[in-house]
Amino acid sequence: MLRLATIATTLTRKLMAPVKVFGPAASTNVARVLVCLEEVGADYELVDIDFPGKGHKRPDHLARNPFGQVPAFQDGDVILFESRAIAKYVLRKYKSEQLDLLREGNLEEAAMVDVWTEVETHQYHPALSPIVLECFIYPTLRGLPTNQKVVDESLEKAKKVLEIYETHLSKHKYLAGDFVSFADFNHFACTFYFMDATPYSNLFDSYPYVKAWWENLMSRPSMKKLGANMSTRN
Amino acid sequence: MLRLATIATTLTRKLMAPVKVFGPAASTNVARVLVCLEEVGADYELVDIDFPGKGHKRPDHLARNPFGQVPAFQDGDVILFESRAIAKYVLRKYKSEQLDLLREGNLEEAAMVDVWTEVETHQYHPALSPIVLECFIYPTLRGLPTNQKVVDESLEKAKKVLEIYETHLSKHKYLAGDFVSFADFNHFACTFYFMDATPYSNLFDSYPYVKAWWENLMSRPSMKKLGANMSTRN
Repeated sequence: MLRLATIATTLTRKLMAPVKVFGPAASTNVARVLVCLEEVGADYELVDIDFPGKGHKRPDHLARNPFGQVPAFQDGDVILFESRAIAKYVLRKYKSEQLDLLREGNLEEAAMVDVWTEVETHQYHPALSPIVLECFIYPTLRGLPTNQKVVDESLEKAKKVLEIYETHLSKHKYLAGDFVSFADFNHFACTFYFMDATPYSNLFDSYPYVKAWWENLMSRPSMKKLGANMSTRN
Repeated sequence: MLRLATIATTLTRKLMAPVKVFGPAASTNVARVLVCLEEVGADYELVDIDFPGKGHKRPDHLARNPFGQVPAFQDGDVILFESRAIAKYVLRKYKSEQLDLLREGNLEEAAMVDVWTEVETHQYHPALSPIVLECFIYPTLRGLPTNQKVVDESLEKAKKVLEIYETHLSKHKYLAGDFVSFADFNHFACTFYFMDATPYSNLFDSYPYVKAWWENLMSRPSMKKLGANMSTRN
């Protein structure tokens, strides 16, 4: 019975027009949305934005996102921007009893998803992303040299953040508790590039619970698929 | 009948132990939670943290918030940190048909609440808060001079952000649409100090829809009450 319901849901999704994501798949903020779309098995179309030609500043894109950034998102008449808001829309839209990645029906669980989603925004990302920018994005896309002072300062910040994650993940399998959630997915793109495209992936060796959590996440089909396309080692 | 139900709900709330918010009321992140508690009429206790004495770095506070920041929050066995996560917990816990400030049951409305909540985090706050810090927090609390270069750069950023808000608020009464929501409340503390404690409050005169939105918010009892305590003009 459950199986029939799953088949019916899958068929319904296939019949609907795919949702559209505007932006390059390689962008960490675009990948934040894609990982959620992959997790829920949604049919989606990726519409590239011509960044070198300033496509993100053209009127058609500004109509989707007035701040001229990526991603933007379209689902019929619904047009959204801000990656975390789009990701939550996706997770709500495709929510089922088996697939509840925000847990908004449970006061405590939803709060833990929110806490660790905010921790990603205000602690984890500000510590790790400058390292990704300085070691990968700026040299590769802008031809700029790495600012090692920024890298070293960020590594010190990252160690403090990872220590707190280590303690937390020694008690819980996932960030929000013993269930996988948006809080975990939210860490995918930045961590992927940190591990794949900077010389500091061995930093995680000092935090075995964090490393095990990350390897567990990377074994998920969604992240394997997206990671294969994002990898700088191809 | 509705009136009886309201009285019953109010009585039940009064009988429950009040939730606790840890941190100084003057902190913008603490105020983000307080405005939500006031809006839903929750009974709460504010527990001050001895900042000058590094109370936020003591074990009892670190057990509540491992990053040693404010606010932290306690509701019986539930202990939370990160102001936006706490605020959402509060709005979910005290949600009713008349008081639904996250709109999580409506896919589109919830998405608009999320979009403009994220805009506050990633656009509005980064533009306006450095002006509050440089003109008010640093000189008053740390005895540091104002860095006018930071102020001037932030004012330029703020103008671009406010232009987008102006266009948006010319079409909608509130940020998420024609209903007040968490997205609006989220702007309270930073905007309050910008208007009350910096010499740049007249910036809003150039954006009449934004100004009207702000004045409308400030007429709410929650914001009047908190603002009276936060004001530097007393």
